[in-house]
Amino acid sequence: MKKKEKRIFDLSKPLNPDIVNELSDDELQDLANCIKKEIVEKCSKYGGHLSSNLGVAELMCALFSFYDFPKDKLILDVGHQSYAQKILSGRTLDHLREENGVDGFQKREESIYDVYEAGHSSTSISAAMGMALARDLNHEDYEVIAVIGDASIANGLALEALNNLSEFHHRLIIILNDNEMSITEPVGGFNKFLQKIRISKKYITSKSKYKKALSKNKFTRAIYRLTSSFKRKVAHHLFYTNLFEDLGILYAGVIEGTDISMIKNTLKKLKGINEPILVHVCTAKGNGYFLAEEDKNGKWHSVKPFDIESGQSKEKVDDRYISWTDLFAMSLDKLMEEDNSIVSINAATRCGGHLSHIMKKYPDRYFDVGISEEHAVVFANGIAANNGHPYVTMYSTFLQRAYDEILHDVARMDLGVTFLIDHAGLVGQDGETHQGIFDVDFMINMPNVTIAMPDRKETAIRLMKFSKDFAHPLAIRYTLSSVVNESINEKIEAISYGEWEIIKKAKTNDLAIVSMGEKVHIIKMIEKDFTLYNAIFLSTFKDEYINDLLNYKKIIIYDPYGIKDGFSCKLSNILREKGYQNEIKIVALESKFVKKGTIAQQEKREFVDIDSLKKEIYK
Amino acid sequence: MKKKEKRIFDLSKPLNPDIVNELSDDELQDLANCIKKEIVEKCSKYGGHLSSNLGVAELMCALFSFYDFPKDKLILDVGHQSYAQKILSGRTLDHLREENGVDGFQKREESIYDVYEAGHSSTSISAAMGMALARDLNHEDYEVIAVIGDASIANGLALEALNNLSEFHHRLIIILNDNEMSITEPVGGFNKFLQKIRISKKYITSKSKYKKALSKNKFTRAIYRLTSSFKRKVAHHLFYTNLFEDLGILYAGVIEGTDISMIKNTLKKLKGINEPILVHVCTAKGNGYFLAEEDKNGKWHSVKPFDIESGQSKEKVDDRYISWTDLFAMSLDKLMEEDNSIVSINAATRCGGHLSHIMKKYPDRYFDVGISEEHAVVFANGIAANNGHPYVTMYSTFLQRAYDEILHDVARMDLGVTFLIDHAGLVGQDGETHQGIFDVDFMINMPNVTIAMPDRKETAIRLMKFSKDFAHPLAIRYTLSSVVNESINEKIEAISYGEWEIIKKAKTNDLAIVSMGEKVHIIKMIEKDFTLYNAIFLSTFKDEYINDLLNYKKIIIYDPYGIKDGFSCKLSNILREKGYQNEIKIVALESKFVKKGTIAQQEKREFVDIDSLKKEIYK
Repeated sequence: MKKKEKRIFDLSKPLNPDIVNELSDDELQDLANCIKKEIVEKCSKYGGHLSSNLGVAELMCALFSFYDFPKDKLILDVGHQSYAQKILSGRTLDHLREENGVDGFQKREESIYDVYEAGHSSTSISAAMGMALARDLNHEDYEVIAVIGDASIANGLALEALNNLSEFHHRLIIILNDNEMSITEPVGGFNKFLQKIRISKKYITSKSKYKKALSKNKFTRAIYRLTSSFKRKVAHHLFYTNLFEDLGILYAGVIEGTDISMIKNTLKKLKGINEPILVHVCTAKGNGYFLAEEDKNGKWHSVKPFDIESGQSKEKVDDRYISWTDLFAMSLDKLMEEDNSIVSINAATRCGGHLSHIMKKYPDRYFDVGISEEHAVVFANGIAANNGHPYVTMYSTFLQRAYDEILHDVARMDLGVTFLIDHAGLVGQDGETHQGIFDVDFMINMPNVTIAMPDRKETAIRLMKFSKDFAHPLAIRYTLSSVVNESINEKIEAISYGEWEIIKKAKTNDLAIVSMGEKVHIIKMIEKDFTLYNAIFLSTFKDEYINDLLNYKKIIIYDPYGIKDGFSCKLSNILREKGYQNEIKIVALESKFVKKGTIAQQEKREFVDIDSLKKEIYK
Repeated sequence: MKKKEKRIFDLSKPLNPDIVNELSDDELQDLANCIKKEIVEKCSKYGGHLSSNLGVAELMCALFSFYDFPKDKLILDVGHQSYAQKILSGRTLDHLREENGVDGFQKREESIYDVYEAGHSSTSISAAMGMALARDLNHEDYEVIAVIGDASIANGLALEALNNLSEFHHRLIIILNDNEMSITEPVGGFNKFLQKIRISKKYITSKSKYKKALSKNKFTRAIYRLTSSFKRKVAHHLFYTNLFEDLGILYAGVIEGTDISMIKNTLKKLKGINEPILVHVCTAKGNGYFLAEEDKNGKWHSVKPFDIESGQSKEKVDDRYISWTDLFAMSLDKLMEEDNSIVSINAATRCGGHLSHIMKKYPDRYFDVGISEEHAVVFANGIAANNGHPYVTMYSTFLQRAYDEILHDVARMDLGVTFLIDHAGLVGQDGETHQGIFDVDFMINMPNVTIAMPDRKETAIRLMKFSKDFAHPLAIRYTLSSVVNESINEKIEAISYGEWEIIKKAKTNDLAIVSMGEKVHIIKMIEKDFTLYNAIFLSTFKDEYINDLLNYKKIIIYDPYGIKDGFSCKLSNILREKGYQNEIKIVALESKFVKKGTIAQQEKREFVDIDSLKKEIYK
């Protein structure tokens, strides 16, 4: 039969969600193609998570065709693969991740189709279990479906959920969206296991073997029945009775993630099983955009605006500047060259740049442990406990996952683990779930932990030199910005412990400002007589600086990189304890979840931009 | 051959660690028996972790006989099973866990045999990986051995480590100490899997099958060689090629944990494998004390002083008092009776009492998810997201593991999860790793989170009534103490949001004290004219209370339950922001890891006892 002409869907306007119910599987494929085209276009314009979203277009079309959303509940792990779901539920990707556009993740206030929210990975199975339980306690009747990626499922939280699943007797579909990729290439034994299944995609050849294996109880018998009839129709699937079965989890797979009919048929067969079941779907990250399909380094995972034809970024590269990430990676490279006991540990956030260079240069001392922040920190602490020096590179927001390990292991044993904290401060478009504004607050009161933040390249290098011989927990924070790539004398000395810098000295004692990070160089340009302290160490308050501050008639603490309850409150309290009775004004972030936008928009909105500081200065 | 007469070892004096090298396997068994006797005696006198320590006596004797500690490194997960290791390394259990006795866990400053420390579970594999890596980077030559229990290994952190293990090519022995018990009966799919192995303990009957399975690479071939010769000598072991192999981990087991020769023989065979290998040893928790052997409820996991013959606790039960734990569990029971949407979630710390009653009474709404704090919190949040009301009961110190899930999931979505935080404040003998003094600090600045703490039974019940209809994150803290079991009118009203109570009103405005918890009833007895506020809500500072406080010439903030950077600093800052210029004195815990002792000793040592408060009052 000749396939009908391809249907074109105009996705620049909101799609009517009801239309999906009327489409044939062929038409659903046409819709998926249009969705992929739309995703490429909008990502090329606004930036966004490209590869993972392209990979699930067919899967989402199949789910929307098969299920009755929003009555049925769909929970997307992380949620950065939600673009197709947004389109199918009647949203456009206009101004994607911009202040007034749709969010990059699922967001409850954005749509009734978004029933749970994430941003950090591996929460979806646990959350879906909770929702399924609540449904049954409330005597409601609908499906709960979690979609989780192959990298996310190997994180501790998701593995805890899998471990708990065998004792959870409520109806629940878990779709393992296996695209054979984390942000970069997959790591870990769990993934090796998935790979083994993927490779062994095959027909069920021996009926009796499976019958025997699956005839143990009514649920597995149901699975047997469905597979034995099912296998006559579809290729490329098998019932694997291994790791998942060991964990007591019903498993169905492997299903081809680009085959809408096969996905729908599988889900149809699974109807009526009142237990959790894991459906293993193989998708292809980047599917539908030629450059993303070949990507092995995560270049197309999260993109900035780019030219579709050439793949070139639309952002101009200015060689005079260097990103903090590349800067600290280059310093780390130099340290690793000099000292064989230095180890670099990363938890799935490499994404190109100079860290990739380190990975290739020191294969024995570079570890990407996957989305395993807890393990990364304790692994590092074991190295430090045995005379090695680990450097853990991690985004501020993901470091939260290891709060206990930093406190109970690293801080309590007071060992020399250095944390290079990336994405500290406001992070712009990722919004509420990703802001790196809590790390100082949660570490500043941990015994033995020192926190520092460089303002420019020179300070950054002096801090790295300091870190080398510092045998205690040290966290160095870096924002998403770039800094002037000034040339630095190789022999520059390490910074001294607790050092602050006076950037500008007032003639009078009217006003002192204490700040940190690259902003100090903007502050110093403000035309007004004030003393400006660059608080390079955020957790160390030397008497000489505090005593000097006590002389001023007014002190402004300006911290646009963290909530005020962290550094600002601590300094304020110390000043008060020392008897300071004059005015202290804090210009810092309130403790709240800051919504998406550019960093400049966020600073303005949250009253931590330079204008807000100026207002306080000229008051 | 007739066995020689049993040797008796006097373990009331330090054992010379070298002696172990001279003992035959029979004599090692005699030593293990003496160790078990000593553990029972010392636990009956001082209290301590009984069951898990009895279970590993033979295993520890075998390890000390086979390895060359402290040159070889032994890392015990949690460390609460370290008593035999302490004895074997030349320490006595005198004054066990008392201020001047040995610690209940491994402690680096206590002995060079203690190379890593824990208290929280599931860190040992990651830490051992770090130590093994550092060893190889430093070109040293010795063994690194991690011992981890079957409950601990199913926690997310340990599972992350297992996932990472297949890519870790360094020599490392991981001993899975499988005693078929968590603190209480085991839960979860991972344990079901272990049970399946345990049940299938058998000879390797089909040589060819295993040869084929194990001939894939040089490591598995080495394993095949050792097992094929090995099996002629020992019974009850097999090479299981399942979940662990799926994760790419070399596995040897099951080894009988009471058979010292078998353990040593196995370890001998594994010598020379330069990869991580997991050795599955089956021990029996409580082995050697008749009452502990039968225990299914965790009664003998952690004990207070008891009579060895009868098993009766030496502590007198005073019916006039009730523990906070039983009190909140009874209130929860009542709420669950009235409302079918309430779910109780526990993470492996049930241990008898009224929570066990809840478990039996509401099998569909009580969940013990195992040592899975992260999953527990997200599971709860999923329930809350779908119109259920979860109550998560967790020790303060373990709640740390879920910092990210509380912030990123519960607080950010602002959902109605209630945390009943047990073991808040100082906890006494468990020492540095278990103090519940950080929870207010790490939650007080989380948006949307409310923290409260009752002072007496009436307040506790009023808080529980309040929690029922509160649709936002709420944490209620309870200390380890007991409170007067006063009779309460059933119809007592819920507390109102943010309520503080004036316990005592001064005639003058000389002094106001702000405190919380059961201590307020001791403070009020101090003979001095002061106003005493009971700050029931620790994160809510109503204007009416703050404005009243501004009138006093001096304010003392007394918090013996948390570090001063939590509640005390927050209140102090608020008062200063409101313009309060008089003296504020904070009597609270410094941010440090408080060493073991009784709670009274700790309060005195840390200057947060009533005498320290009095000194400040009478100053």
